[in-house]
Amino acid sequence: MLRLKRIAIDTYHENVAYLGRNCTDYRAESFQALAKIEITPNHDHGRRKAGDGQAKKIFAVLNIIDDDRLLGPEELGLSEQAFTLLDLAEGHEVDIAQATPAASLDAVRKKIRGETLTGDEIRAVISDIAAKRYSKMEIAAFLISSASFLSTAEVLSLTRAMAGVGTRLEWDLPVVVDKHCVGGIPGNRTSMIVVPIVAAYGLTIPKTSSRAITSPAGTADTMEVLARVDLLFDEMRDIVTREKGCLVWGGHVDLSPADDILISVERPLGIDTREQMVASIMSKKIAAGSTHLVIDIPIGPSAKVRSHDEAIRLRKLFEFVGDEIGLNLKVVITDGTQPIGRGIGPVLEARDVMKVLRCDPDMPIDLREKSLLLAGHILEFDPGLRGGQGFERARAILESGEALSTMNRIIDAQGRVEKETPLGELTVEILADGDGYVTAIDCYRLARIARLAGAPMDKGAGIELIVKIGDKIERGSPLYRIYATAPTEFRYACDMASENNGYGIGDSPPPAGWPDKAR
Amino acid sequence: MLRLKRIAIDTYHENVAYLGRNCTDYRAESFQALAKIEITPNHDHGRRKAGDGQAKKIFAVLNIIDDDRLLGPEELGLSEQAFTLLDLAEGHEVDIAQATPAASLDAVRKKIRGETLTGDEIRAVISDIAAKRYSKMEIAAFLISSASFLSTAEVLSLTRAMAGVGTRLEWDLPVVVDKHCVGGIPGNRTSMIVVPIVAAYGLTIPKTSSRAITSPAGTADTMEVLARVDLLFDEMRDIVTREKGCLVWGGHVDLSPADDILISVERPLGIDTREQMVASIMSKKIAAGSTHLVIDIPIGPSAKVRSHDEAIRLRKLFEFVGDEIGLNLKVVITDGTQPIGRGIGPVLEARDVMKVLRCDPDMPIDLREKSLLLAGHILEFDPGLRGGQGFERARAILESGEALSTMNRIIDAQGRVEKETPLGELTVEILADGDGYVTAIDCYRLARIARLAGAPMDKGAGIELIVKIGDKIERGSPLYRIYATAPTEFRYACDMASENNGYGIGDSPPPAGWPDKAR
Repeated sequence: MLRLKRIAIDTYHENVAYLGRNCTDYRAESFQALAKIEITPNHDHGRRKAGDGQAKKIFAVLNIIDDDRLLGPEELGLSEQAFTLLDLAEGHEVDIAQATPAASLDAVRKKIRGETLTGDEIRAVISDIAAKRYSKMEIAAFLISSASFLSTAEVLSLTRAMAGVGTRLEWDLPVVVDKHCVGGIPGNRTSMIVVPIVAAYGLTIPKTSSRAITSPAGTADTMEVLARVDLLFDEMRDIVTREKGCLVWGGHVDLSPADDILISVERPLGIDTREQMVASIMSKKIAAGSTHLVIDIPIGPSAKVRSHDEAIRLRKLFEFVGDEIGLNLKVVITDGTQPIGRGIGPVLEARDVMKVLRCDPDMPIDLREKSLLLAGHILEFDPGLRGGQGFERARAILESGEALSTMNRIIDAQGRVEKETPLGELTVEILADGDGYVTAIDCYRLARIARLAGAPMDKGAGIELIVKIGDKIERGSPLYRIYATAPTEFRYACDMASENNGYGIGDSPPPAGWPDKAR
Repeated sequence: MLRLKRIAIDTYHENVAYLGRNCTDYRAESFQALAKIEITPNHDHGRRKAGDGQAKKIFAVLNIIDDDRLLGPEELGLSEQAFTLLDLAEGHEVDIAQATPAASLDAVRKKIRGETLTGDEIRAVISDIAAKRYSKMEIAAFLISSASFLSTAEVLSLTRAMAGVGTRLEWDLPVVVDKHCVGGIPGNRTSMIVVPIVAAYGLTIPKTSSRAITSPAGTADTMEVLARVDLLFDEMRDIVTREKGCLVWGGHVDLSPADDILISVERPLGIDTREQMVASIMSKKIAAGSTHLVIDIPIGPSAKVRSHDEAIRLRKLFEFVGDEIGLNLKVVITDGTQPIGRGIGPVLEARDVMKVLRCDPDMPIDLREKSLLLAGHILEFDPGLRGGQGFERARAILESGEALSTMNRIIDAQGRVEKETPLGELTVEILADGDGYVTAIDCYRLARIARLAGAPMDKGAGIELIVKIGDKIERGSPLYRIYATAPTEFRYACDMASENNGYGIGDSPPPAGWPDKAR
């Protein structure tokens, strides 16, 4: 028996347990080479810190500590994630044992051999992943073996399995609408304009968004500049009942915990297959209780989807899964050749959004037009609206100020941030190194620069675009401005921008037509 | 700039860096979601602790510390592995930055898409893995994507790349022999008998072996019961010059560091493809400077190789790679239906080995016969020996006591362990639950029980087999005896044995013939 100790180390999506090398009851090294250990509370001892029901066992990888000051010979340390999950008080007695490898790993090995998995096998894998039974490398094994081939039936099983392990929001309404962008376009904060328009129209749109993982801002990070976003489901339900819409962080309502874990491995590996993307998005929408969904697929040379053919294949997979699970969806293909709006980073993006809602003459037109396009498609889910009237109706709601006042009510209901968040005080303008026209903007590169400048952790950090595709420039005229607060981060961002500023310059403006048409 | 601090945490094959959440110069969270950070020493400050040449940068995953007592706001903590690798004194100033993803990950993504990699691409991947540039999940991505398909050209490139990144032993001799078993059979300690026979004959056999990773004993663990095994290359060379042979731990001479890292991911994942096995073994043999090699492939229902066809495919791949790299090899297919000898665990296996070398009437015959078979094949690498005389010659060397005296000289040269290591004092006999004959012994299960009992960390822990395949038994007669020292480990092993003791019992002895013939 070991006594539990909380070790103040944040091990990010992985449970880590710490055992002293000179531990009296266990031989630490004999555990370490093996995949995981399991930690079981001693039921006879103490009381649970909180909650009711059975104390659960958890799984963790083991690190060995060689310093008695950190951990005594009769103690078991747990990283913050593991400690929270086990949910016992310090000093509680626990038992450890070598974890039996998860039985569902047999299915992973089957997938590695190129076979197709049954629904039950996929459900077992996802349930073990959600229980933190898999190590990161085991998760990678599942992802990589699935990346080479997943049948449409497997995509559907994966979607259902991921939706099945988290919380499921129940709205008791015939129509609950939602929107989703497959991502990769900086500044693309349409949700914060679409939600107030749709809510003002009267459709229910309880929007849950993610925080940025590898991008410079997620909708949740940007909304957080204006209002509290970490709401519990009960608060969220109250607001949606009154205001028809909300813009909250999805992490707190635990919609698809397996998906969150898969994403934490997918992103750093840079694998992002069509099949996994569809299962990920659709599982979250099922869990969020959506009945009608508009999906935005931007196409561009540095977007996630690079060609029209690819977008069509993706659209068909979304439609297949949507039909099978009974989710009514509409896929909209949009221009993803450059960032949307002017700002990249939470404060700058929130500023763009509020300008559009206020109908400020200085607003970014592309953000407004794209938001109206998406809102229009959502409004047409209403059987009562005449076909083709969605866009006009959305525009009328925006221009009348109804969208703005709805947004203000949502902000107040979620908890308004009274103090304005300042922009970073360290700024530099990145200048054109030639004459001509802007012909390309590398979304990935600009996202990376904004991220290095400190976004999204530093909400005031980021990039403000001064010129966009088609604009005429001269050598030495400004392309964009970097904002940062921390000197090291400012230096990283400047270094990366001076190595390659992400702008393409040519002698003539790019040809008109698609994807230009969508702008 | 941060000051370096050693954190006494053993993170096993992964570099981990620790940064305080309230760090003054860096925003800890902004690094954490990303794959790795790179740590660069400040050259202007302090002196290097040891060595000459340029201070190197290292890569590490980041954990965040929330406790000022563990780490100050101007400090960067490093786990033991990372601290040793960076090789700087505590207090040295270092800089950190988000690591640029390894360029070779493009090759991994190419492999995930099902393409074939060039030699240069494989070399880049292996070189980054050896530099600890990959996270465990990135390593898993490479392994899994390669597990589904590797061309023979890729196997060859992988072999050469892995042999290229570590130390390469140079012997300046025309014939340097070696043996290797593909593994999976407990008690299979033939090397400790083959080496003294071959060395006594006069061929040079500088044997490097591994410690157990997931098995209850490696040759290095067993040899360590009798002699020191963590020799440096200079010591090893001196002994080999005098005695023609040695039995040392390969980890200390760093023969194929990339392979060691790959194995640390392969084993827990339970993936073990033919292609990766061949590249792993052959790379280590090239690096060890071997010119002639006997490879033992045991076949059995619970061995690594389960059928004759599989063994033949594996043999052909070994032969292809051997021919291409100019290594003269002979593959021997042996009986792998049950453990070899009686002991499983370092002390018990060392006892079996010494009984065979001493020609003790109580010796395990199967261990003796198999060792003579393998030694015979090695002796036939000598062009001066008449074909077919190897086995007889090996037997003569064993029976004359020459092998024993050579072994004693090798033990003395490496550093004899004077004090006898005791067997575990906690013992239990596992009894037959029926009458009849032993028809099967599950190698995997017995290895697991011996491991739970504490082997190989506890050298005196393990299993002593009392009956083997073909033996007649009665209900209640003993099958094997478990030895352990720690009460918790004893309990784990007993629990697993009582759940399923790993013995198959039938009404009649198993039929004679292959694989029985090889016993």
